[in-house]
Amino acid sequence: MQLLKDRIRRDGKVREGNVLKVDSFLNHQMDTALFREMGREFKRRFEGEGVNKILTIEASGIGIACAVAEEFGVPVVFAKKTKTKNIAGDVYTVKVESFTHGTVYDVIVAKEFLGSGDKVLLIDDFLANGNALEGLAELVQAAGAELVGAGIAIEKGFQSGGDMIRRKGIHLESLAIIESMDEKTGEIVFREDQK
Amino acid sequence: MQLLKDRIRRDGKVREGNVLKVDSFLNHQMDTALFREMGREFKRRFEGEGVNKILTIEASGIGIACAVAEEFGVPVVFAKKTKTKNIAGDVYTVKVESFTHGTVYDVIVAKEFLGSGDKVLLIDDFLANGNALEGLAELVQAAGAELVGAGIAIEKGFQSGGDMIRRKGIHLESLAIIESMDEKTGEIVFREDQK
Repeated sequence: MQLLKDRIRRDGKVREGNVLKVDSFLNHQMDTALFREMGREFKRRFEGEGVNKILTIEASGIGIACAVAEEFGVPVVFAKKTKTKNIAGDVYTVKVESFTHGTVYDVIVAKEFLGSGDKVLLIDDFLANGNALEGLAELVQAAGAELVGAGIAIEKGFQSGGDMIRRKGIHLESLAIIESMDEKTGEIVFREDQK
Repeated sequence: MQLLKDRIRRDGKVREGNVLKVDSFLNHQMDTALFREMGREFKRRFEGEGVNKILTIEASGIGIACAVAEEFGVPVVFAKKTKTKNIAGDVYTVKVESFTHGTVYDVIVAKEFLGSGDKVLLIDDFLANGNALEGLAELVQAAGAELVGAGIAIEKGFQSGGDMIRRKGIHLESLAIIESMDEKTGEIVFREDQK
């Protein structure tokens, strides 16, 4: 998606350790007009596949997921990273290792919000090693729901997550795939769009 | 806001310990069409006050805040509850006690996204004891930004947060104020709309 790639080139910052900072528009400060265009793009890419629920994971996927959900006219559910007092025991749980934080945490979703009638599109802001996305896919499976596919804003193509998800046969659409980036020059090379 | 009150009456569940579960449409599963209407309502209530930034706190405030931000055509920043590897030291920090989790945590916002030129509207899903909202107001103050007001989806009028925030002279607009609720009968009584 050219709009997103242009924005990453303009405002993204390449940092040590393969970190791409896009927190001025994607995951700390958020540009909801951009999210709207991303929502429309995901709608185009998954049109006609019967999506009736969006599943994301807190926190930075929520804004994008809401835009996508509004385009599809379906609810969005965000999986939670810890068990809160407000959620009773009736949840699906998977363990996910965080690339950003270097920790393992539980990801849960209440059973009442994910079930066998659901055709689920996963949405997240980043795909790196794929642990979070794999965890969401496992939640869909545990719920007996159908996984339609996964929509990602930025995929780090030089990490293994995208290939791993595609090898599982999951329909993955990433709006910007970074082939390489250079922390010294700040240069970012994108993979060519398939479309 | 009648639409929200009707939805709370229909789908909200009163639980022991003054817990109101609205996770089927507000803070686990999210109804983005409802969020859109809430965004429009907050726009009406804070129209003409020069809002140029929305500030919320992860995670359940993000969806509503994005809808509000899109209505105003301004960016939204979500304050984060822990320090991540992706954020350098250049942050404002406050400590907040969580009613839901019974813990104290740091809330941070990067200095580059909140500053003296900003006229900030705070948005959150719940107001109970007001700790989170007070923390956000302190972040605005620390940044030298101007606090326009605070927009809340559901205020628990029988807890002290709303009064505390209003006593500080903050323009607080809650779309539904719960006067009382009964965990045995499930009855929910709303405060009359001021508008």
